[in-house]
This record gives sequence, structure tokens and C-alpha cells, in this order.
Amino acid sequence: MQPASERLPAVPASMAGLLDEVGRAFERQLSSDMPSVNTLCRHVERYRGKMLRPMMVFMCGQAFGDVGRSHVIVAATCEMIHMATLVHDDVLDEAEVRRRGHTVNHLRGNEVAVMLGDYLISNAFHLCSQAGDPALNLRLGEVTNTLCEGELVQLSHRDDLSLDEPTYFEIVRRKTAVLIGACCELGAMLSGAPRPAVDALRRFGEGLGVAFQIQDDLLDLEGREEVVGKSLGRDLEKGKLTLPLIIHLARPDGQARERAIAAIRARDGAALIAELSREGSLAAARRRAEDLVARARAELSHVPVGPERDALDAAALAVVHRDF
Amino acid sequence: MQPASERLPAVPASMAGLLDEVGRAFERQLSSDMPSVNTLCRHVERYRGKMLRPMMVFMCGQAFGDVGRSHVIVAATCEMIHMATLVHDDVLDEAEVRRRGHTVNHLRGNEVAVMLGDYLISNAFHLCSQAGDPALNLRLGEVTNTLCEGELVQLSHRDDLSLDEPTYFEIVRRKTAVLIGACCELGAMLSGAPRPAVDALRRFGEGLGVAFQIQDDLLDLEGREEVVGKSLGRDLEKGKLTLPLIIHLARPDGQARERAIAAIRARDGAALIAELSREGSLAAARRRAEDLVARARAELSHVPVGPERDALDAAALAVVHRDF
Repeated sequence: MQPASERLPAVPASMAGLLDEVGRAFERQLSSDMPSVNTLCRHVERYRGKMLRPMMVFMCGQAFGDVGRSHVIVAATCEMIHMATLVHDDVLDEAEVRRRGHTVNHLRGNEVAVMLGDYLISNAFHLCSQAGDPALNLRLGEVTNTLCEGELVQLSHRDDLSLDEPTYFEIVRRKTAVLIGACCELGAMLSGAPRPAVDALRRFGEGLGVAFQIQDDLLDLEGREEVVGKSLGRDLEKGKLTLPLIIHLARPDGQARERAIAAIRARDGAALIAELSREGSLAAARRRAEDLVARARAELSHVPVGPERDALDAAALAVVHRDF
Repeated sequence: MQPASERLPAVPASMAGLLDEVGRAFERQLSSDMPSVNTLCRHVERYRGKMLRPMMVFMCGQAFGDVGRSHVIVAATCEMIHMATLVHDDVLDEAEVRRRGHTVNHLRGNEVAVMLGDYLISNAFHLCSQAGDPALNLRLGEVTNTLCEGELVQLSHRDDLSLDEPTYFEIVRRKTAVLIGACCELGAMLSGAPRPAVDALRRFGEGLGVAFQIQDDLLDLEGREEVVGKSLGRDLEKGKLTLPLIIHLARPDGQARERAIAAIRARDGAALIAELSREGSLAAARRRAEDLVARARAELSHVPVGPERDALDAAALAVVHRDF
């Protein structure tokens, strides 16, 4: 659930109006009769960023028919779930900066950030219930269960230098990818897409989500804070193994392993990046992301040819070609 | 949402079977395919305590008719919401002991406790969705929104010596009472109770919830940790004003105020209790709780005469006559 700042290719005009509707649904949902709560909500709304998840709901919906009120509710709900996870992730990561602003935990303390995250989760479910469709509640409840499990499993592997690739991918699938997959799936479903297409778009979204996380891993190592817009180097500090490291530590070359472990123990980011770069582990991780994007794009064969499919294709490519 | 350990008068046999069903629904809901998540869930199930909230659902249901699967789902959902709030409250309060066991944050760190609380909230909504009744999701989403608002407003008044009684009651109503009120309301509603009775039982539950919190305030000041079973004196340490203190600080006697403020500033619990006791502020808070219970009991005139109504009446009395 980490993906922080995200930008997609130019937003088409038909999308801009829908994203405005999401913004209004958001504000309506988060307006409290308690002024101190409202102040917090206004602060956190800046986390909304480029609304990758709502756009996925709408693009997948438009590919199969009209989009309506249920799409807007699902889009706003998924973005609110995402925002809640950002607020709690920042507590877990002790991050100070998010989208070029200070995090809630940094400004107001961990207690407020924990409770504000809870408030966002609660409002997300309340918003979703307004669609009056129990299947949506059930599916999104399943998604957030999975998402929390991913986070809990990740925490249980903190500082675990033996974490292997399958476990890494399972963690990332759960904590990041299932929500994006659900956006694609539900967007298509609500527009009456046939089941095989709904399933293909779920896989498309999940593949993109995993690729997105790998790109985040790379940015945490290589990115520049002023470009990415959030605290970097946290993965290393918090003992979170990222894909380039996992690939590196699985190399048969004992000396390469030892150099990397020494850099991790010393929390020496510069030495670690030099080592991962020299041995090709950064490039290997980047290839994994590119493979995932290629496979995701192949799923688009289930989508009717047209501008909506092209937009989904462009979005997939953008995931691995971003530096923010 | 603080009420910690709770015990009601003897559980009737008809209730025991239903509470077992709640236990099974709980275990089913919280069984994950990730072993590390399961271990955490088994630990946290000890927080279930005496299941005040499920009993309220069933007692209010039985007073008007049969209770069925929806009652069990609502009961388990409300208990799971309550449990989630306990896990996050313990993070906020930096508490080490809960129900005579160590808290999750103490054993596994704040990060795991934050994420486990999220997992419980998420599962509560997922469980609730299984009833297939959007009205239940909508109502419980509203309740948890209100609950989080209460916590956020409370945090915004930390160390605020000018907190007045109306604000205190608004905080407590939101963070503690609305959930108990919803248990009573939904239990009755699902058994087909007429609207005036449903509303009366919501007021009954809310009144009891506020009285419950006042009793918790008193126990935090006066209770013995080995009897109450959780870390005490936290309210004072965390700058949380409790009702006896609010009453005391509103006294016209400037010297009494100053003695109390000096004790608060020094974080000297013994001196504070002596002062509050001497000036009658503990007794005044206790009277507020007793008044609330008396008014709650009067709402039971909307309930048909019978053993269920007697049980609700006995439960109301038990709230202010507990030392744990």
C-alpha cells in the first residue's frame, strides 16, 4: 500500500469531471460536525495525489459501458482506503514528509495519526455502504483484510535477511496490489463487463500494483527526496527488505552477499546502492517490474479496442517509467 | 471506547449458546491463511472479556422476539469493533497490561498493534457485510465514524484544564456510548421491535455507556490494578481529564482548584485522589453515573414485562456497582 505519489499520462476530459465528483464525494463524506476533526480532514486531503485508483475504476468501467454513481462511490472508497493506509504507514515508517507536506504523525503525533487513519477506514466503509450493494461491501472488506495481512506479514519479516522472493511477492500482492486489482475489477463489473474480462482486469491491476511497488522500492534506494516528495531511505532504516536486496542476497557470490549485509548492518545507504548497482541487482529488480507490466498489458486483450484500452495501456507503461 | 473488563449478572442458559455462536463467528472470521496473522488473532481473542455488547444485542432482541443469524453477526461485529478500539487505545495510552495479559503494543511493538487494530476493523466490516443488509453496514459505519470522532476530539483536549462537562459528555457519548446504544437498537430492530422501543433502547444503551465510562474514570483513579486487570493511572499520565477532575476544577473554591492543578502538574495521583475525595468530587461524579443509570432504566418502560426486561434492568444496575 505504499505507492506514494503517482502520476498518469494526461487525464482525458471525460475523466476530469468524474475525478471532480470523487473529490466532492470525499469532502461530503469527511465533513464532521466537530471542527477539530474537520481541520485534520482538510490536511489529509492533500494526500489524494493523482488518484490512480479512481482513474482505474473509471477507465475499466468506460471500457465496457457507462459509468455512474456506483463507480464514483467505489472510486472514492478505494482512494479513501488508500489514504488511510498512507496515514498508518507513515506512523509505521516514522516518516516526516509525504507529498511535499509534513505527515500527520510528524505534525500532530502518532496518537492523532492512528485515530485519523481509523476515521478514514471507517468513513471508507460508510461511504461504500451508501451504494446499497452488499456485494461491494463484501468484496472491499475482503480486500482490506488482505491488505492488513500483507502489512502484518511484512512486519513479521522485519530485519529478516533470509526473506525470499515468493514471500516478498506475496506481501506486495496483498499490501499493495489487491486494492488496485479490485479497482479494475469493480469498475468493469459495475459496467456489466463479462466475467472473463472482469477477472483479466483484476489480474491487470494486481500486476500493475506489484510493479508499482517494485518501482517504489527502487525509488526508495535511488530516488531524490525533492523529486519523489516523501521521506526516502526508510525501507533500509526500518529493516524492510526490498526486491533489489532480496535478489542480491540470493546471489551465489558469497562476497557480494557479505558486502551488502555489512552495508545493511551499518545502515549505509550509499555503499548499499553502489553494491547493488555494480552487481546488477537494481537492474534485475527493474526487469521484474517490466515483465509484470508486459504480462499485465497482455491481459488487455480481453478489453474492446478503443481509446479506453489505449489509456489503460499507457497507464501500465507509466508505472515503470516514473521517477516520483 | 475504553471500558475494559466488564461483567454482568449471571448469564442465562439461553444466552450461553448464543455467546458460543459469537465466539465461533469470531474465530471463523479471524482465521487467516497467514500463520503469523493467526498467532496475533489468537492472542487478541483474550480481550473478548465478558461480551457486554453481544449480550446487549441478544437481550434487546429476545425482549421482542426470536434472535437469529443477523443478531449473531451484529453481536460479533460490535465486539470486534470494540476489540479493535481496545488494541488502538492501548497504543494511544502506552498501556502494558490488558485483561491481566500483556498488550499487543507491549509484546510486539506499536507497528504491529496499529496494523492488527486495522485488521480487526476491516474484519468487523467484512463480517457485517455477510448479513447482506446494507442498512446494517450503513448504521455501523456511522457508529464507527462517530467513535473515531470522539477519540480525535478527546486527543485535541489533551492537557486542557478548561475542558467543560458538556464537551466531556459529548466525547464520551461518541467514543464509548454510541456503540453500546447501537447494540441495543439493532438487537431490538432485528427482532421487529416497534420504532419507539428501538429508539428507547438506543437511549438506554447510550446512557449505560456514558455511566460505564464514568465508572472507568473512577476506577482509573481509585481502582487497584490487580482487581481491574489493566494499567491504571493512565488518564492522568496521558493528560486525559476525567469527570471527577472536571467537576473539581469547575468549583468556585479557588484553593481547591489550585491544589488539584498542582497535583496534576506533579502527576501526583495520591495527592489528587485525596483532594478530589475530600471535596466530594469523586462522589459527585458517582452521582452523575447513578443518575444516568436511573434514566436509562426508565427507558425500559418501552420493553414488554418479562425476564428479558429484568435482565436489562439488572445489567444497568451492574454498571455502577463494579470494581473491575
